[in-house]
Amino acid sequence: MIVVMKPYASQEHVDAVVKLIESRGLTPHLSAGKEVTIIGVIGDKSRLEGQNLEVFPDVDKIVQVTESYKLTNRKFHPEPSVIHAGSAVIGPDTLTIMAGPCAIESREQLLTIARAVKAAGATMLRGGAYKPRTSPYSFQGLEEEGLKYMKEAGEETGLATICEVISAESINAAVKYVDMIQIGTRNMQNFNLLREAGQSGLPVMLKRGMAATIDEWLNAAEYIVAEGNPNVVLCERGIRTFETATRNTLDISAVPVLKARTHLPVIIDPSHASGVRAYVSPLAKAAVACGADGLMIEVHNNPACALSDGPQSLTFDQFETLTKELKSYAALSKRAF
Amino acid sequence: MIVVMKPYASQEHVDAVVKLIESRGLTPHLSAGKEVTIIGVIGDKSRLEGQNLEVFPDVDKIVQVTESYKLTNRKFHPEPSVIHAGSAVIGPDTLTIMAGPCAIESREQLLTIARAVKAAGATMLRGGAYKPRTSPYSFQGLEEEGLKYMKEAGEETGLATICEVISAESINAAVKYVDMIQIGTRNMQNFNLLREAGQSGLPVMLKRGMAATIDEWLNAAEYIVAEGNPNVVLCERGIRTFETATRNTLDISAVPVLKARTHLPVIIDPSHASGVRAYVSPLAKAAVACGADGLMIEVHNNPACALSDGPQSLTFDQFETLTKELKSYAALSKRAF
Amino acid sequence: MIVVMKPYASQEHVDAVVKLIESRGLTPHLSAGKEVTIIGVIGDKSRLEGQNLEVFPDVDKIVQVTESYKLTNRKFHPEPSVIHAGSAVIGPDTLTIMAGPCAIESREQLLTIARAVKAAGATMLRGGAYKPRTSPYSFQGLEEEGLKYMKEAGEETGLATICEVISAESINAAVKYVDMIQIGTRNMQNFNLLREAGQSGLPVMLKRGMAATIDEWLNAAEYIVAEGNPNVVLCERGIRTFETATRNTLDISAVPVLKARTHLPVIIDPSHASGVRAYVSPLAKAAVACGADGLMIEVHNNPACALSDGPQSLTFDQFETLTKELKSYAALSKRAF
Amino acid sequence: MIVVMKPYASQEHVDAVVKLIESRGLTPHLSAGKEVTIIGVIGDKSRLEGQNLEVFPDVDKIVQVTESYKLTNRKFHPEPSVIHAGSAVIGPDTLTIMAGPCAIESREQLLTIARAVKAAGATMLRGGAYKPRTSPYSFQGLEEEGLKYMKEAGEETGLATICEVISAESINAAVKYVDMIQIGTRNMQNFNLLREAGQSGLPVMLKRGMAATIDEWLNAAEYIVAEGNPNVVLCERGIRTFETATRNTLDISAVPVLKARTHLPVIIDPSHASGVRAYVSPLAKAAVACGADGLMIEVHNNPACALSDGPQSLTFDQFETLTKELKSYAALSKRAF
Repeated sequence: MIVVMKPYASQEHVDAVVKLIESRGLTPHLSAGKEVTIIGVIGDKSRLEGQNLEVFPDVDKIVQVTESYKLTNRKFHPEPSVIHAGSAVIGPDTLTIMAGPCAIESREQLLTIARAVKAAGATMLRGGAYKPRTSPYSFQGLEEEGLKYMKEAGEETGLATICEVISAESINAAVKYVDMIQIGTRNMQNFNLLREAGQSGLPVMLKRGMAATIDEWLNAAEYIVAEGNPNVVLCERGIRTFETATRNTLDISAVPVLKARTHLPVIIDPSHASGVRAYVSPLAKAAVACGADGLMIEVHNNPACALSDGPQSLTFDQFETLTKELKSYAALSKRAF
Repeated sequence: MIVVMKPYASQEHVDAVVKLIESRGLTPHLSAGKEVTIIGVIGDKSRLEGQNLEVFPDVDKIVQVTESYKLTNRKFHPEPSVIHAGSAVIGPDTLTIMAGPCAIESREQLLTIARAVKAAGATMLRGGAYKPRTSPYSFQGLEEEGLKYMKEAGEETGLATICEVISAESINAAVKYVDMIQIGTRNMQNFNLLREAGQSGLPVMLKRGMAATIDEWLNAAEYIVAEGNPNVVLCERGIRTFETATRNTLDISAVPVLKARTHLPVIIDPSHASGVRAYVSPLAKAAVACGADGLMIEVHNNPACALSDGPQSLTFDQFETLTKELKSYAALSKRAF
Repeated sequence: MIVVMKPYASQEHVDAVVKLIESRGLTPHLSAGKEVTIIGVIGDKSRLEGQNLEVFPDVDKIVQVTESYKLTNRKFHPEPSVIHAGSAVIGPDTLTIMAGPCAIESREQLLTIARAVKAAGATMLRGGAYKPRTSPYSFQGLEEEGLKYMKEAGEETGLATICEVISAESINAAVKYVDMIQIGTRNMQNFNLLREAGQSGLPVMLKRGMAATIDEWLNAAEYIVAEGNPNVVLCERGIRTFETATRNTLDISAVPVLKARTHLPVIIDPSHASGVRAYVSPLAKAAVACGADGLMIEVHNNPACALSDGPQSLTFDQFETLTKELKSYAALSKRAF
Repeated sequence: MIVVMKPYASQEHVDAVVKLIESRGLTPHLSAGKEVTIIGVIGDKSRLEGQNLEVFPDVDKIVQVTESYKLTNRKFHPEPSVIHAGSAVIGPDTLTIMAGPCAIESREQLLTIARAVKAAGATMLRGGAYKPRTSPYSFQGLEEEGLKYMKEAGEETGLATICEVISAESINAAVKYVDMIQIGTRNMQNFNLLREAGQSGLPVMLKRGMAATIDEWLNAAEYIVAEGNPNVVLCERGIRTFETATRNTLDISAVPVLKARTHLPVIIDPSHASGVRAYVSPLAKAAVACGADGLMIEVHNNPACALSDGPQSLTFDQFETLTKELKSYAALSKRAF
């Protein structure tokens, strides 16, 4: 941590900061420039908790030099993690394709889609049983009934399964039926839910909050890992910007940034990022070329009648065409698919 | 709802849309321009749920003409609402000042602050017992113990009390001790929590999500009101933008926009919006001048040692100076304070 | 400037940075923490130009501790500046109201509006003769002819005049006819234009770029002042964010932030910021309460027929009502108006 | 164009809108719903210029259904354009790699880099002679002298050449020395410069403004094409968002969006988008996988001593490794490289 003093700060005010640092058993290092004095703080900065150096007289700003996430930080865990979820393996040597409907609408719908995405090469089945919807008057999901269909579809096809959870209750249900749980973008900083997901024993896919910085996202992942659950996968699904041509703006740079900062695998969701079916395939290819460990893609048997997010869902034919193309891209990045 | 067809859409594709609209018992109105045909949809558009007209051939885009929030919409409830929380009245004729520490740290701390803000003119006491913190390693709040101190402080000073809730459990505790609950920015779209808050019987202050549009925010409020709880107050606390000179960007325009769109009262939180103590007072005055129904302001007996958000907390002297100044602004806007 | 090394950086790599710093005649100060070493650089950092320490091995990041703007920086010029433009005085003791049409449409239109805004209390007349328009097919302004009408309107009413410039040619014309020139948001980083404005001899109002940080804005102002022209006024007119309820998001916090960082006066333009007539008056009052030195407001004799930005223009009656209200706010902030 | 009336608008106010539309020789189509009446406007909407229907009583909003850009719109020019610049061909069948230093620093530097990027497979040489810099105290470029070196480097290596222009003067110089000119992000809405570029006779690469929507960008391109110059290429270089892990956020979705909306070629600049050397190669591969027609990449003989943007420049070895990898991606997208 570095304390930057204001230009021409008084000696008395510099001394007050130095004294506080020393009083906590830390070592201050002064660098007195012509205009500005800076004070480096050496030692365990958690000893300064509850001390707001920003409000000391003549303090200009505080610069943090180390990240607050530790367990998810690649600096302290250089090898990339490999996460197992049912039959699926998510990590540097594989390309994981999660596919399925946005919302589970019925047993028949889910089984039909599961068979189709399996045939096209998907490795995991996605499908929402608990839907967080912007308006209270929209379809909210089949809940536990939907999870039962997921279990059946997974067993029949051999696909691993993943479902979004939105509460302790839904986590308790999910544990009985699916291989992996997902925390959605609106809950990325629902810290209670993160802790409960950490305690669930299931691998967790954590979607990025739509206005979360990458560092806030890694801190959210840290909540899960800190509960003793190292099986976390990150999913970039677009951030909110001023551009309205797409529903969100896919932050594709998050892939190399995350590869530098964390050992956790990274999945890209081009369906939610763009909100437009025609853009899903180009973005999926970009994601693989860029180093993503997998994709989450919405596929529906009848997008014109989907109860949720139909406009961004691929048809079976479109999904099959995409997976064929992806094989070449997976080969270029030396990933099994 | 309006369906805009692509230029030179085929008659067959226009007919397909028209046919679908009619099949749901709705009336289509065609306007065929030289390049573009548009189709207005007359009737209750909820009959189109589960139909994604966007994916029909030659459909260019869908334009919504009515808002999806109804109960919170001023168009259908022209009179501004007045909300009662303990001894406090929040509405067009009053200026409500909620003040107190970001986090409740001890009984003594809270009582000291409560007495000071009461003396300076505050009408409600704020204080966090359950703290959503970005890092799992930061102070997380005193929980129910903190709520007990709130109750005591409220009884001693006569101030109404407000606390943030983050889970069903914390709502159940809050019901026993405080006059009003708050849903924080990170939980604005935690729809389960919104429903539980709606069922709590307590008035609710709903903070804006840091990347939420005003319409999403009103839809979130709709979740609470739809549970039969009309006592909702909105709190603008800054949105996330590219500017880093302040912690968030206070969207002051939200005040007149909300006054036009909803009948619910509007509170401004300049402390969290700016994150810098020196900016709190000018922004507080701007909020009142702009038509806000109240303010939420952090005040601490020792900002240099606050366990949470000290750099943005006012000292007692600063708060007293501010409330004195605010009296003139309240008078200009004809509000009791 | 501070160089932060990566955790466990090798001694050799630390030495390489130290050696470079010393080779430029600067003094390095090392603070070696348990994980991280930081190196403060003491001396005139311009000696490091053309050296990219970021790409040295084991360098994690570079933290700047001093701002790159000097002449506009309040740290080195603590007294607020007072700018004179024709009969107008812009500074801490006055409230300057610039009012007029977005675009000058005809001699009669401009004279009619000038008389009305003068009668209502405005101190400066605004009006666009050179209009930067998003589409090449929109009205682009009367150019020099418009400037002649400005001169006539200024002389008849006694109002000081301000016009936007977009090129060297338009600056040369403006010098002959108006008291102050304005650089618009799209040209905030048109550095050639900034230099030419600096050389014009006229006071300059510099609008904030719609995605410019406050520090970039002050650097842009520095371009003008560095040409020997200290008469610069800053105008906040809304930044681009995800919110679409208003055309831009008025960053009202820019007022106190600028007051802390620079000695230049600050004007708020609520018309362009909101794009909606009904929001102009509340935002204007907020701006004055917050400490702004003035306002720029669009007024039109017939907003329904304005050639540019009619929906945000006030009518004469609305403007008169606003100026009456502003008198009380100006009094509270001890400004002559 | 569609006029949406407020709920329960009076008949008189609906009639006023209808009457105005008819008075301009246009045809109104009314759709009267239960709550809301909408009015479609059939005909050439330019006849409504100078009429602000937004401010008519009971008008809620105006919805545009056709884009304001015409010449650049793919709806009216379905075939993708192919642009020739010196020896380079930019279009759907080729992958164009523009490479070189951010700023031209000397004849030797430029020739050294030109030879290296040519050897590695680049098709165009980039290099800045006129540099728009945030601070007036930074290196501003060699100007015409730099252009002469570009010409020499182009002739020796056979590479086509491209340079940024920032003024009429720099365009006049560029015409003498280079094959293509570039309008930078800060000048995207410098409409005078756009017109002058349109008149220059040279092909133009138009970079996206850092806060420009895709539609604003296409309108800016329309300014150039409207001058009779159809040779325009678009370059996405990152937009401004809240994320600070990269200098800007590469909006990779702009590639498929532009492919849908315009016939002009699309180039991606991963160097300026990310600002970090390690992220350039993954983003370059993503761009090609996504359908981009080319890349602009900064390469420097000594990034540690580059006078501008060194931290994002590739070394010769890194660039050579990248171009080798890109060959496979170009083959997958059936582009000659």
